[in-house]
Amino acid sequence: MINVNSTPFSYGGKIQKNIVVIGGGTGTYTVLSGLKKYPSDLFDITAIVTVADSGGSTGRLRDEFGYLPVGDFRMALVALADDSDVGQALRSLFLHRFEKGEGLKGHNFGNLFLVALTDIFGSEEKAIEYASQILRIRGKVLPISKQKLTLSAEYEDGSILHGETHIDEPPEGHDGKKRIKKLWVDEGAVISESAKEAIEGADLIIVGPGDLYTSILANIVVGGAQEALASSRGKFLYISNLMSKYGQTHGFSVKDHLDELTTYAGRVPDYVLVNSEPLPGDILEKYAEQQEFQVVDDLKDVSGQRIIRGNLLAFSEQKKNSGDTLKRSLIRHDSEKIASVVISLPQ
Amino acid sequence: MINVNSTPFSYGGKIQKNIVVIGGGTGTYTVLSGLKKYPSDLFDITAIVTVADSGGSTGRLRDEFGYLPVGDFRMALVALADDSDVGQALRSLFLHRFEKGEGLKGHNFGNLFLVALTDIFGSEEKAIEYASQILRIRGKVLPISKQKLTLSAEYEDGSILHGETHIDEPPEGHDGKKRIKKLWVDEGAVISESAKEAIEGADLIIVGPGDLYTSILANIVVGGAQEALASSRGKFLYISNLMSKYGQTHGFSVKDHLDELTTYAGRVPDYVLVNSEPLPGDILEKYAEQQEFQVVDDLKDVSGQRIIRGNLLAFSEQKKNSGDTLKRSLIRHDSEKIASVVISLPQ
Repeated sequence: MINVNSTPFSYGGKIQKNIVVIGGGTGTYTVLSGLKKYPSDLFDITAIVTVADSGGSTGRLRDEFGYLPVGDFRMALVALADDSDVGQALRSLFLHRFEKGEGLKGHNFGNLFLVALTDIFGSEEKAIEYASQILRIRGKVLPISKQKLTLSAEYEDGSILHGETHIDEPPEGHDGKKRIKKLWVDEGAVISESAKEAIEGADLIIVGPGDLYTSILANIVVGGAQEALASSRGKFLYISNLMSKYGQTHGFSVKDHLDELTTYAGRVPDYVLVNSEPLPGDILEKYAEQQEFQVVDDLKDVSGQRIIRGNLLAFSEQKKNSGDTLKRSLIRHDSEKIASVVISLPQ
Repeated sequence: MINVNSTPFSYGGKIQKNIVVIGGGTGTYTVLSGLKKYPSDLFDITAIVTVADSGGSTGRLRDEFGYLPVGDFRMALVALADDSDVGQALRSLFLHRFEKGEGLKGHNFGNLFLVALTDIFGSEEKAIEYASQILRIRGKVLPISKQKLTLSAEYEDGSILHGETHIDEPPEGHDGKKRIKKLWVDEGAVISESAKEAIEGADLIIVGPGDLYTSILANIVVGGAQEALASSRGKFLYISNLMSKYGQTHGFSVKDHLDELTTYAGRVPDYVLVNSEPLPGDILEKYAEQQEFQVVDDLKDVSGQRIIRGNLLAFSEQKKNSGDTLKRSLIRHDSEKIASVVISLPQ
C-alpha cells in the first residue's frame, strides 16, 4: 500500500494556483475535502456545481420555493467547511436529515439553511456567500448557471427522459443498460459569469469522480461551459470513477468515460487519474447485485495525455451522516490520496 | 426625552456581577438585547426560560419530536447573539419564518435549527450549548426545567384551561376579562439543577416585562423555583408591563401585577421599574380595539422596596422579522434604556 504522505505520484511540479473543481454530489465532495486540508496560500479552490438536481429534499424545495436546487451547493460547502469544534457542529447540521415531523421528514437541514438564507437575502448567490462565511469555508462555491435547469437524456433506443432525478434513478420499465445518446439542458441556459471567469482563469480544472451524466456533463452541457473549458489555459484533469452506474454508465470502461467526456467537453483531458489497486472481491459481489461493476482500466497512452495510476482507495468507513448509502460507502476514493496527486501535478 | 447615555437612573451603585433574567418571549428578548451590549467583564448574563410553550411552530415541533419546546430558547439566544456581519445573518436566520413549503410554512428556522441540533447531540442542553457557540452569544441560556411542562390555569369562575397556547390565546367562548385564580404545571416537574444554581448564585434577578402568567409565572410555578428565588441573596427586580393583556391581565394595574408576582414568588421585589412617559393616545386607541389597555401606575412606596420611574419607551420601529406583530411593535420598552437602569442599580 502506498503511503500518501510520501507523495506517491510525485511529478516534482509547481503547485497549481487556481484549482477549479466542476461537478456536484459525493465525488466532488471527496475531491474538495482533500484539497481543503492544504493551506490557502498554496492554492485557491473554486467549486462549480450543477443546478439540475430535481430529486429528494432538494427537488421538493426547488418546486416549492422556486429557487436553484441547493443540494449540490450544500455538499460542496460542507466539504470546504472549517474543521473547528463549531465548524464540526455546523457540518453535522448541514448533513442532517430530519426523520420526523410532518413535512420535515426527509428534508436535509443544510438545504433548509440555504433556502432560508435565499429567502432573507433575495438571491442564491448571496445565500451561498453568507453560508460560506458562516461555515468559514476554504475557497468558494459557484453555481454553473443562475438558471434552474432541466436535464434531458435521449437513449440509444430513441426514448427520452426529462429531469435529473429520473436520469439518475430510471423509472420502472427503463432498461438501465441502455446508453445515453444525447444529454442536454433547456435551450437558452447559460453559464454564470462567475463560473465562466473561474474556468477561464483556472490553472487546473478537475472533473470526476462522480455520476458522468447527472453530476459532470450536467455542467458541461450548459451554454458557454464547453467554450470556457476550451479557451481556458488551465490543465484539465479527469479522475475516473471506480464503479459503473446502472442507468448511466452500465458496462463503461475508463476509456468509455473518457471518450464521452472528451466529446462533450470538446477537449482531451491533459491528465487522467485511475485507481490501480484491486477492489475487494466480496464487496464487488454486493455491487454486482445492484448492477454496478468495476470500471475496467483499458486506457492506452495518447500523445499529450498523461495517465496517472496508483492506489486511490479509501478503507475507512464513511460516516453515517454523509447522506450516502452504506452500499456506496464501501468502495470509494480517498480524499487525501487524490489531493496529494493533484498538488504534485506538473504545470 | 431622557438621553440613555447620560444614565438617567443613576444610583451610583456597583455593577451587578451575575445577572439572571427569568422569562421567555419578547419582553425577555428586550432586556437581554440591552444587557448584551455591555462588556462581558462587567457582568455575566444568564437567561432562564420557560419550557411550557405549546403553540405555533414550537408546539408542532414539541409534539412531533418530543423535545423541549424551543421557541423561548431561540428568542433568548438571538437576543444574546454576536452583532458581527455573520452574527447578523445568523440572527436573521434564527428569526426567519418560512412562508412557503408543504410542512415548512409557518415554521421558524431557528426552531428547526435547535431541533436538528437536539437530533444530532441527543439533548436539548447540548443543542443550546452548540447553538450558543455558533451564535457566539454573550452569556448563557438555560431551561427552567428539563421536563416539558403543561401549564394549567383555573379562572375565577372555576373554569380550567390546559396548555400555554390556550391560556395565551383563550378559545372562543372564553371571557378574557376573567382573572386567573391559580396557575400550575404538571405535578413532579422540577427546576433544572443549572437554573437552580444560577438563581441561587445571582446578584440580580430580573423578571418582566412579559406575559405575566405564560412567560413569567410559568417559570416560578415549577417545583423548586420559588424556593431558589427565596433563598437567593440576589436582589429581585420586576419590570412592569406597559399594556395589559386580554385573557391574562385584563384591567391589571402595576400593583395587581406586582401582588400576583409576590404571591407566586413568595418574595417582594426589591426594585420595581415603571415607565412614566405618557403613551401616545392614537396608538392606545388601536390597542383598545384589541382589548389591551395601559397598565396604570398605582404603586405606593413600600418599606424595603424601591420604585424607579422614568422614560422606558422605544420609538424606533421594530424589525419586521422579529416574529412579533406590527400592533405590538408600536408600544414597547427600549432595550438600552432598561439596561442603563439595570447596571446602575444599587446592590
